[in-house]
Order: sequence, then structure tokens, then C-alpha cells
Amino acid sequence: MSRIAFIGTGVMGRSMAAHLLAAGHELHVYSRTRKKAADLLANGARWHDDPGTATAAAEFVFTIVGMPRDVEEVYFGEKGIIANLQPGAVAIDMTTSTPALAERIAEAARQRGGCALDAPVSGGDKGAREGILSIMVGGDRKGFDRTLPLFELMGRNIVYQGSAGHGQRCKICNQIVVAMNMLGVCESLAFAAKSGLAPKTVLQSISAGAAGSWALTNLAPKMLDHDFAPGFYVRHFVKDLTIAVEAAAELGVSVEGVKLVKSMYEKLAARGFEYDGTQALYKLWGDE
Amino acid sequence: MSRIAFIGTGVMGRSMAAHLLAAGHELHVYSRTRKKAADLLANGARWHDDPGTATAAAEFVFTIVGMPRDVEEVYFGEKGIIANLQPGAVAIDMTTSTPALAERIAEAARQRGGCALDAPVSGGDKGAREGILSIMVGGDRKGFDRTLPLFELMGRNIVYQGSAGHGQRCKICNQIVVAMNMLGVCESLAFAAKSGLAPKTVLQSISAGAAGSWALTNLAPKMLDHDFAPGFYVRHFVKDLTIAVEAAAELGVSVEGVKLVKSMYEKLAARGFEYDGTQALYKLWGDE
Repeated sequence: MSRIAFIGTGVMGRSMAAHLLAAGHELHVYSRTRKKAADLLANGARWHDDPGTATAAAEFVFTIVGMPRDVEEVYFGEKGIIANLQPGAVAIDMTTSTPALAERIAEAARQRGGCALDAPVSGGDKGAREGILSIMVGGDRKGFDRTLPLFELMGRNIVYQGSAGHGQRCKICNQIVVAMNMLGVCESLAFAAKSGLAPKTVLQSISAGAAGSWALTNLAPKMLDHDFAPGFYVRHFVKDLTIAVEAAAELGVSVEGVKLVKSMYEKLAARGFEYDGTQALYKLWGDE
Repeated sequence: MSRIAFIGTGVMGRSMAAHLLAAGHELHVYSRTRKKAADLLANGARWHDDPGTATAAAEFVFTIVGMPRDVEEVYFGEKGIIANLQPGAVAIDMTTSTPALAERIAEAARQRGGCALDAPVSGGDKGAREGILSIMVGGDRKGFDRTLPLFELMGRNIVYQGSAGHGQRCKICNQIVVAMNMLGVCESLAFAAKSGLAPKTVLQSISAGAAGSWALTNLAPKMLDHDFAPGFYVRHFVKDLTIAVEAAAELGVSVEGVKLVKSMYEKLAARGFEYDGTQALYKLWGDE
């Protein structure tokens, strides 16, 4: 059994941490809002008032927080992870954050005699609850091998993508595809509705063929039912697309499609739909 | 057994017509290039020198030609279908064409005492060969019911979408999604390659989750293998996206994503890749 710190017990984090706890590991938790850790504490996790003391007690430190600035804060802030990382410990950031920050954390962890992984996930709250997340991992290979048994408690498609930042870069690849698939579904359904077709009958024709996608199967019906409840928040997707566009710009990769979708999600957020699910993009076509 | 005319025996048409012939129907064929009908003729189909005489012999007239102007020619040209359509006969255009032309054909067929269906397909040459096409049908409901047993020889997802033009409109919905899914795959793979990731390892992480699509599963590996052999021609997709953008403009539906992809495919065609498969879009990122 390992001594594990878990920083960030939001919707995703609490489910992921619960799997570690259920497997019998010693769990040290910190979260900005203590009550979000209540279930974990009731099941034997130990509370810490800052990331640093949780880190000082652990061989593995997992983080999954909101924005890159939150990642920066828990790693490099006062009473943060880096200053308290134990020699030989592994710090694993599972937030969707920037490749550059992942590289910075990896270097800082190395200087402390530990190591770091960037390991963002895909699969949403459902994937987290069911322990079936996809986990895309960058960073120290030995650190990955040591952490793998713990990843396996949280996910089932766990792939080592390469050096520090490559987990985040892979997640960017994922979100690029997700973004465009979503736009395709919206424009298609908007056209269907406006042209007098029955959109659900259209889905019967198109979902199983060359147009098929996870989004078409899972989110198109929600759009048509005006179900905009969040599986994944608009505000987090705006963050992810911002990271994608910036990272692509640094590399000189043309991502006109992603830029277009990003501008649409920013418009959606500006209209007050930040806490809707990403399928709320369809609202921009005025059929909500 | 029915008397059937089949106009257009290109890659798609010859496979589709072969299924009708194999089921024992009397087949009358016309195609711009006679040698493309050679196999059908060897198996008992009867050749006609123009669409009109083939039509005059038939209760059902199927067409699948290249462009909307070709559809217009075989229906309304000299020795065309409309002028020779028998009372009670059904004319079925399976070309991906415009909703407006489908409506015009339907009205003209009605005036001749017959009826018409617009029934574009999805599934490509493979779907045609295996008789597993998706067929999206608009037009006269009774005509659909009568034609259904013949459609069932060619496809397996056969859905009546509504009045004349609705088959074409549904196909537009399909192609909108296909277009955007393709762009997402390209931008994602281009980012992966440029950022130092191993793109095939990225596919392992992202293909099975929320980014999943037919394009990601079937076309992304081809792009990475530089396999641009046509399942579906760039030049036909340019046509389809032109139809989509024009139809959307008529309805006032915003399709910024489709416009973007259309401009990219036009660029690709202008560079001489008209007869590549649609996955050749990836060449625009310079990784071919």
C-alpha cells in the first residue's frame, strides 16, 4: 500500500481519489473547499490544510484542479507541492493544463530528487466514477511504471505518450477532435431543423455511417432534447481550446477549425452558459 | 420481378445495379461510357443508347451520375427520363445532388403520371459492393413503399426522410458532419506530428473516447500511412460541400465550419488532388 496525496477533490477528483482509497491506500487530501472532500474523509482519508503538508506525507501526489493558474498555485505557491516533494516521490498532474507548465513542473520535481508526470484524462465524470478514464501520460518513464498500478484503479486506456508535456499535448489532440466533431453536429442539426427534416430521423440515417462519432451518438440527442446539463463544462472547454490554440501557434500548426470553435465557445460563455455542458454550443443556432 | 432502368454505371452504380440484376430483375442500362456497363451486359442486362429508351422500358428508373448538371441532363435533356417516364413509374435519383433539383424532378414526374424519389446514399464503393449502403429517401411516400424491396437489395439502413428534396437534405446533414470530423482529424494529427508525439500512439489514447469517430478510426491511419487512395473522391466532396453551403445560405443557417472545410477542399483540388480520397485533406498540412 502506498502513501498518496490527492489535491483537488472536485467532481472528477473525488471519484478518482475514492478508487485509490477503496483499494486500501493511505490517502492524504487537500482541496480548496473542504466539504468537497467530506465523503473521502468519512471513509478514512486524512485532511490537510495545504498542498504542502499533504505532499510531505506522500510517495505519490496526484493533482486535478481547474485552470493552469490553479496548477501553478498548488505546485509553486506557498506551502506548495514542489517545496515539499519527498526524494523519490512522484507528482502527477491530471488537470488538463499547458505542456509548458508540465515541463516546468517536471524540471522542478527533478531538482527536488523526485519526478513528475502530466496525465490528463478523458471520459468525464462518468468515466471517473466508473474508473474507466482514458489517461494520457507524459514525463519520466520510470515514474510512469511506478504509478501505473494506481492509474489502473482510475482508468482503463492508459497510454504513455513520451517526455514531459506529451500527456498534455495528447490531450490537446483529443480536444481538437472533440471540438470539431461538436461543431459538425451543431451545423448539421441546425440545417436539419431549418430545412424541415425531423432531426431524430436524420440521426437514424447518419449516425451509423461515415458521419458517425461519439458526439453524434451521445450529444446530438441531448441537443435535440434541450438537455444541456454538464457532462463537461463550457468554461473548461474554453480553457482547453485556449491551450490548444496557443500551443499550436507556438509550433506553427494551422488550426483554423479549432480557432473557429474556440470563438464560438467564448461567445457561448459570454452569454452566460459557462456552466452548461459543451453540447450547449447548439444554443448559438437559436434552437434552444 | 420488375422492369428496371439503371442510368449511370460508374463505380457506385455498377455495384448497385448488379444487386438488382442478381435478384432476377429485368435490367435496362445506359451509361455515358458503355464499357463501364460491360459486366452488367455480360450478365444479361440490356444496353440502351440513351436514358429515354431505357426509361420507356421500365417501371423503376434508377440514376446515379456525377454532378447535378449530369442529373439535369439525364432527366431533362433530349431523350431524357422525364419525357419517357411511363405512367405509374418511379424515377429514383441516387446521385448526391441539390434539393431544388430533386423538387423539380418530383414535380415533372408527377405531371407525367409517375413519381420521383431522391435517394442519395452513404457508404462508398465498399458499401455499394456489399449492398450495405445507407439510403436517405425523400419524395412520394407510396413510391418509397413500392421501391423499398429494391432499395433493400442495395442497402441496409434505408430511412424515409420526408417530401421531395428531403433525401438530399439529409445527405447534406451527413456531409456536414463528415466534413468537420475530417478537419478535426487533420488538425489533430498535424499538431501531434509537429509537437513530437507519435501520432499512432496518440490514436491509441483518443480513438475510443469522446473524440471517437468513423473518420478517426478509418481515415486517420490512412493519413499517417500516406495512403490517399480514393474511397470517396475529393472532387465529389467539393461538389457536396458546395451543395451544402448553398442550401444553408438559402435557409439562412450559419455553417461557418463547412465553409472553412469547403475552402480547404477547393484548395486541395486546385493543387491537383481532385482524384485523391477525401483523407488527402491532410496534405494541406504539408506532412504528406
